[in-house]
Order: sequence, then structure tokens, then C-alpha cells
Amino acid sequence: MRIDILTLFPAMFQGPFSESIIKRAVEKGAVEIVLHDIRDFTQDKHNRVDDYPFGGGAGMVMQIDPIARVINKLKEEREYDHVIYMTPDGHRFDQKEANRLSLSGNIIILCGHYKGVDQRVRDHYITHEISVGDFVLSGGELGAAVVVDAVVRVLPGVIGDETSALTDSFQDNLLAPPVYTRPSDYNGWKVPDVLLSGNDKLIEEWREEQALERTRRLRPDLLDD
Amino acid sequence: MRIDILTLFPAMFQGPFSESIIKRAVEKGAVEIVLHDIRDFTQDKHNRVDDYPFGGGAGMVMQIDPIARVINKLKEEREYDHVIYMTPDGHRFDQKEANRLSLSGNIIILCGHYKGVDQRVRDHYITHEISVGDFVLSGGELGAAVVVDAVVRVLPGVIGDETSALTDSFQDNLLAPPVYTRPSDYNGWKVPDVLLSGNDKLIEEWREEQALERTRRLRPDLLDD
Repeated sequence: MRIDILTLFPAMFQGPFSESIIKRAVEKGAVEIVLHDIRDFTQDKHNRVDDYPFGGGAGMVMQIDPIARVINKLKEEREYDHVIYMTPDGHRFDQKEANRLSLSGNIIILCGHYKGVDQRVRDHYITHEISVGDFVLSGGELGAAVVVDAVVRVLPGVIGDETSALTDSFQDNLLAPPVYTRPSDYNGWKVPDVLLSGNDKLIEEWREEQALERTRRLRPDLLDD
Repeated sequence: MRIDILTLFPAMFQGPFSESIIKRAVEKGAVEIVLHDIRDFTQDKHNRVDDYPFGGGAGMVMQIDPIARVINKLKEEREYDHVIYMTPDGHRFDQKEANRLSLSGNIIILCGHYKGVDQRVRDHYITHEISVGDFVLSGGELGAAVVVDAVVRVLPGVIGDETSALTDSFQDNLLAPPVYTRPSDYNGWKVPDVLLSGNDKLIEEWREEQALERTRRLRPDLLDD
């Protein structure tokens, strides 16, 4: 899988992409991630990539020309399954979509900034708009990092223990059961006896009960699907 | 406002916190962000901070002791309004919650990793559990960065043009209208005439119509609130 990210702030990805799972996935060759600074594609003599909105109002708008140039260049080089735009009014990202995107070959993710990108970019280049939630961020970069992290960690072979991702929340429409580790008694706060019983069947039953109870209490909507 | 972040991967925040809005907010003194490496607080001779889950199963669990030590230390130094844990089964983060959190004095955000933290941390130290969405990330760090970004950008004085954040999506339960900037004609793709008309009243009406139409089409649920 190859992920091309178009951004005005490539340094935003420095931490998220050089630590933990994503770093390991890149090293293993499970994914190639290429950052493109949109500013490198402007033909403006002052290096501008944004301008005031037509019709007035607050904030700046990212111009179509530099974005069109980088997308056109990438599309000449290879086929892309999706050209994604991160935007708060996009389709809500969830685990199902992460699983689905992980089956893609190549994708482009465009990160907006300021008041967003010129609508014509969305109308003519974007195939898929994604939101990570009902809130506004200072740019699409953190949303893109979230999408990449969620997608990359379900790629085959990325997480060491294959069963680990399968027992995460949402993979079976249930929240995960509570987890405990050593010490078994901390300040008098004790681990439930069943987890120390060594009885695998009882432990499995307890976990299923807990997952179901927690889902019913916190997220009954997940059980309606 | 002061935000203390507890993490096993402080480098994850390097990009997100050294660019763009968050950097500016820190420089202006609107927010103080302090990263704490949980590993610095372990008393284990092998520097361990996680261990196998009681009852068996995949993944590792973050131990209570180092986390309790850093939270206790911070609480001795000052009062905190919230001790937040980032977890996919937490309360769904949205713009209302970002606005609300921006009114806090001091908050702690704990980032889980692997299979999560020992349940006793959640039961005894956490006051508020937040999820950024129905998907699983490799850790709480990206979620915490999302929360910090959304909260910090609505702090007074952080965004240059005060009206800018108010016209974002969700601040009035509507999606934002489309935006356009120069050139007015790109490859034959034109900006709507009304935006070039210079008639502020018509432009305002068009934007309201567009915001309403877009919300009805993409997110009718927002209009039910």
C-alpha cells in the first residue's frame, strides 16, 4: 500500500510517523508513506498557496492550482484508488472504513488548512471526503495522521500478535472488556478473582459479559447494527 | 490554561505541537503544554511500564504504579479540573466538548497504549474518558493531539481573526458553506457569480442557503439538536 499525503505542514507528521506502529509498518515494507509539500507546486512568484475568499469573510482559502498540479503529477505516475480530502463535513471515519481502506493499493490524502480548499478541488479531484469527528481542527494533518494510523495497524503483519487487533473495540461491534495487570493488589484495589482463577472458560465468559455490559451501558447504539 | 500529557511516546507530539496553531498559542502564553514520559516514573528495575494481562490473551497492559505516581505528583503541585483518559470507549469528543474544555484551568490527559491501562487507573484516577471516534489507534497520543488542537484553537486570542472560528462548521450546528478563491476561472471551472457580485446581502443569503443545503444533505442529524 502507498499513501501520498498533500500538506502545507509536512513537519506535523514528524512525530506521528516516526514512532510506534507506523514506523514499524514502514520498516517492514507494509506501507510506503510519501509527504508532499503543496508549497513546492505553486507557480506564484511570492510562493503563495492561499488567498482571500471570494465574497469576503474571515480566513484564507487554499488555491486550486498548486493542489491540482501535485494531484495531476501523482496520477500520471500511478493509479490511485481514492483521492481523499480531510474535512469536518466529510463522511465519518470509523473502524469499518479503516478496514476497507486498508485493502486499497494507492491513496492520496489532501490536508486542508485555514478555511479549507477551493470548492473546485473538491468537485473535480476528490473522490472521497473523510471527517474524524464533529469538531474543527487547525488543519487536516492530525485527521490524516489518525486515518493513516488506524489503517496501517490493520494491515497484515503490522501488529506483532495477529489476534491483538481482532480483540480491539469495534471489530465485533462491542467495546473491549476491562484489562488488568500486575500487581493483583494495589493500595487495596484488587483484580477481579476470576482473572486469577486460571479457568479459561470462566475468564472468557466473564470477558464477554463485561464487553456486553459495557457496550449496553456506554454505547447501546453499537448493538443496533 | 495548562495541559499535562502523560505518555509512553512523547516524541509523537513533536510535529503536532511545534507547528501551526498550537505553537502560536504556546508562544502567546494562551496555553502551557507539559509532556511527561510515564517511563520516568517506573520503579521497576528493568524500567517496565507494562505487563501481560491477568487471565491471558493478546497484547500488553499499562501498569497502574507509574501512572499513579505521575498523577499523584501533579495533583500535589496544583489543582486539576479533569483527569482525562483517551480511549475508544470514552465519551465522543465534539466541538461542544472542545468549547467546554477550553474553559478549564488545568487538565491532565493520559494516553493509553497497547491493550490500554489497568482498569484500576480508570476506576480511581480518571474523571473523564474521551474518544475521538469509533476506531482504534495504536495509542492515545493522536487522539490527545486532536483534543489539544481543537481546544487550543478556540482559546481567546489564539486565532488571529476572532470571527474565523465562529464561522467554522459545528459552531452553529451547520456545516460551513463552500469557499472559493482566485482565479475565478480555472480550466473553465468557474466561481459562482454571486460571490463576485459585490452584493454583501446576496452573498450572505447564498452562504446561509448553501450551509443549510449541505447540512440537510450530508448531516441532517445536526439539525435535530
